[in-house]
Amino acid sequence: MMMKALYFDRHNLKLSEVPVPEPRDDEALLKVKYSGICNTDLEILKGYMDFKGILGHEFVGIVVKSPLPEWQNKLVVGEINISCGKCEYCHQGLDRHCPYRSVLGIQGKSGVMAEYITLPLRNLHAIPEPVKPQCALFTEPLAAACEIFEQIRILSDYRVLVIGDGKLGQLIARVTNLHTSNLCVLGKHQQKLNLLNKLGIDTVHSDNFKIEAEKFQVVIEATGSWQGWELALQAVRPRGIIVLKSTYTGAHNFNPAPLIIHEITVLGSRCGPFPLALQLLAKKQVVVDDLITASFPFSEWNKAFDMASRQDSLKIIMKH
Amino acid sequence: MMMKALYFDRHNLKLSEVPVPEPRDDEALLKVKYSGICNTDLEILKGYMDFKGILGHEFVGIVVKSPLPEWQNKLVVGEINISCGKCEYCHQGLDRHCPYRSVLGIQGKSGVMAEYITLPLRNLHAIPEPVKPQCALFTEPLAAACEIFEQIRILSDYRVLVIGDGKLGQLIARVTNLHTSNLCVLGKHQQKLNLLNKLGIDTVHSDNFKIEAEKFQVVIEATGSWQGWELALQAVRPRGIIVLKSTYTGAHNFNPAPLIIHEITVLGSRCGPFPLALQLLAKKQVVVDDLITASFPFSEWNKAFDMASRQDSLKIIMKH
Repeated sequence: MMMKALYFDRHNLKLSEVPVPEPRDDEALLKVKYSGICNTDLEILKGYMDFKGILGHEFVGIVVKSPLPEWQNKLVVGEINISCGKCEYCHQGLDRHCPYRSVLGIQGKSGVMAEYITLPLRNLHAIPEPVKPQCALFTEPLAAACEIFEQIRILSDYRVLVIGDGKLGQLIARVTNLHTSNLCVLGKHQQKLNLLNKLGIDTVHSDNFKIEAEKFQVVIEATGSWQGWELALQAVRPRGIIVLKSTYTGAHNFNPAPLIIHEITVLGSRCGPFPLALQLLAKKQVVVDDLITASFPFSEWNKAFDMASRQDSLKIIMKH
Repeated sequence: MMMKALYFDRHNLKLSEVPVPEPRDDEALLKVKYSGICNTDLEILKGYMDFKGILGHEFVGIVVKSPLPEWQNKLVVGEINISCGKCEYCHQGLDRHCPYRSVLGIQGKSGVMAEYITLPLRNLHAIPEPVKPQCALFTEPLAAACEIFEQIRILSDYRVLVIGDGKLGQLIARVTNLHTSNLCVLGKHQQKLNLLNKLGIDTVHSDNFKIEAEKFQVVIEATGSWQGWELALQAVRPRGIIVLKSTYTGAHNFNPAPLIIHEITVLGSRCGPFPLALQLLAKKQVVVDDLITASFPFSEWNKAFDMASRQDSLKIIMKH
């Protein structure tokens, strides 16, 4: 059986005819209902991770074939790291860091911008009843936002700065706002900042931002740009923490001396806990509806990608 | 009154005639007995910190004038950060991070390679009886080594790698060895590694070092080189910690993506607790005698600096 899929050959992204994947013994076959475009996808198109294959890792799907019958016809989201389950890291519960892992649509595993995908059953999470499928699409990036608070402890009066008002910055701001009463979000797009203001979150436009003497205990970099990193270094106070959330391609000139002089902690943070993200969505402790800029049928993927790369866009959804 | 001092004019280091400094109300006047050459001094001569003035921050001195008589004639070491004592950081006990601080021989304050220096009384620590003055000279870098364990918790079975067998790497290795039973020191100089072997510390020469599947939970970078940083990134395991101890001049090309993908923590670490360092020296829990490569009279400072910049040297001392 053949299916349509968005295939990236390291040069171009094309809607191609490819075989429907065959699930292994531990895997389910899923029909993709929605997929989302993430900045990582856009970075991959620029060469990040040197990925070749079917793109995409944000999805909502329905189980059409499963080794365990209770999953049949379930609407699900799925964790993107496919670990070996056997190595030292997997045994220590660090399966998201399994050195033998593949990563959905990012590394060694066909992605979700297709009619069908396969995933191990252990990667699947049923979407709780109150969560709309379009909102469930945010589970993966929302879990990534939650990951920060699995890694560091934030006291409720810490001054926290989130740099970036894009898709990931928005989710991080909304999660961080559950942990501190002293949050500020720095961004370049007034319309995006307004969405946060409506939720009662303080924001500042980068045109008006001045580094004050009273710096931030925690700065979360979510712009996916070198400028964001440099700004974080300026805004963080001595002994403070910079959390890096965004990966991107390309290197820049850097001397680590300021990290040492000011005893800064830099913390890389990636994928996070799906169950908590789904719970936050189910209980509406984090709202995401306002982050959907547009929805396109999968056949209009090129329009979807065009819009996703526009500066004023937030989440672009494809309906399969 | 005039005195001799090693003055760096941003181009050359010269023995110059300069006025004996006048202590302020809260300061003691000290006669310098010994000074030590640190790699930071050598980096300053290459342009680090854009420092101009009398060089040096490692010293042992005798109090010749003090606003409090109990300090008179005391043999002392001194903390190098001279804080304002008034700002928010000082009030929070973060005086080593006071934004208005000067730093002895590094930033805005004449250094110790002179006949006399001034320092606030609150910076002074009397040298306990059993510590030889030449060993007390190691208090400042030893305190910097101790600082790591003020910042992170190391479990006794953590695999820890110290990169660098130089002056600072040696001290860090000796302090780390008080905290873990699973330490390895990586270096380029077999003679320096042999000193650690004599203390029962495992070492590996960089010619024989292979990154194994079993990586290190903590990697401490003490080479003061970009290569050390790159090696640290390879040797640390996912979710591990890289501690940066060495500052140096010059920048290199860097993409932070591996920090994010592997959720690495990078921790900058600088000056540390003098009282603990003096206690470790007094109780011989850390030995340092074997780290003195040579001692020169202050008048032979040029020979001392020549030898300090040799690859096979460890600590070079000047006797004033």
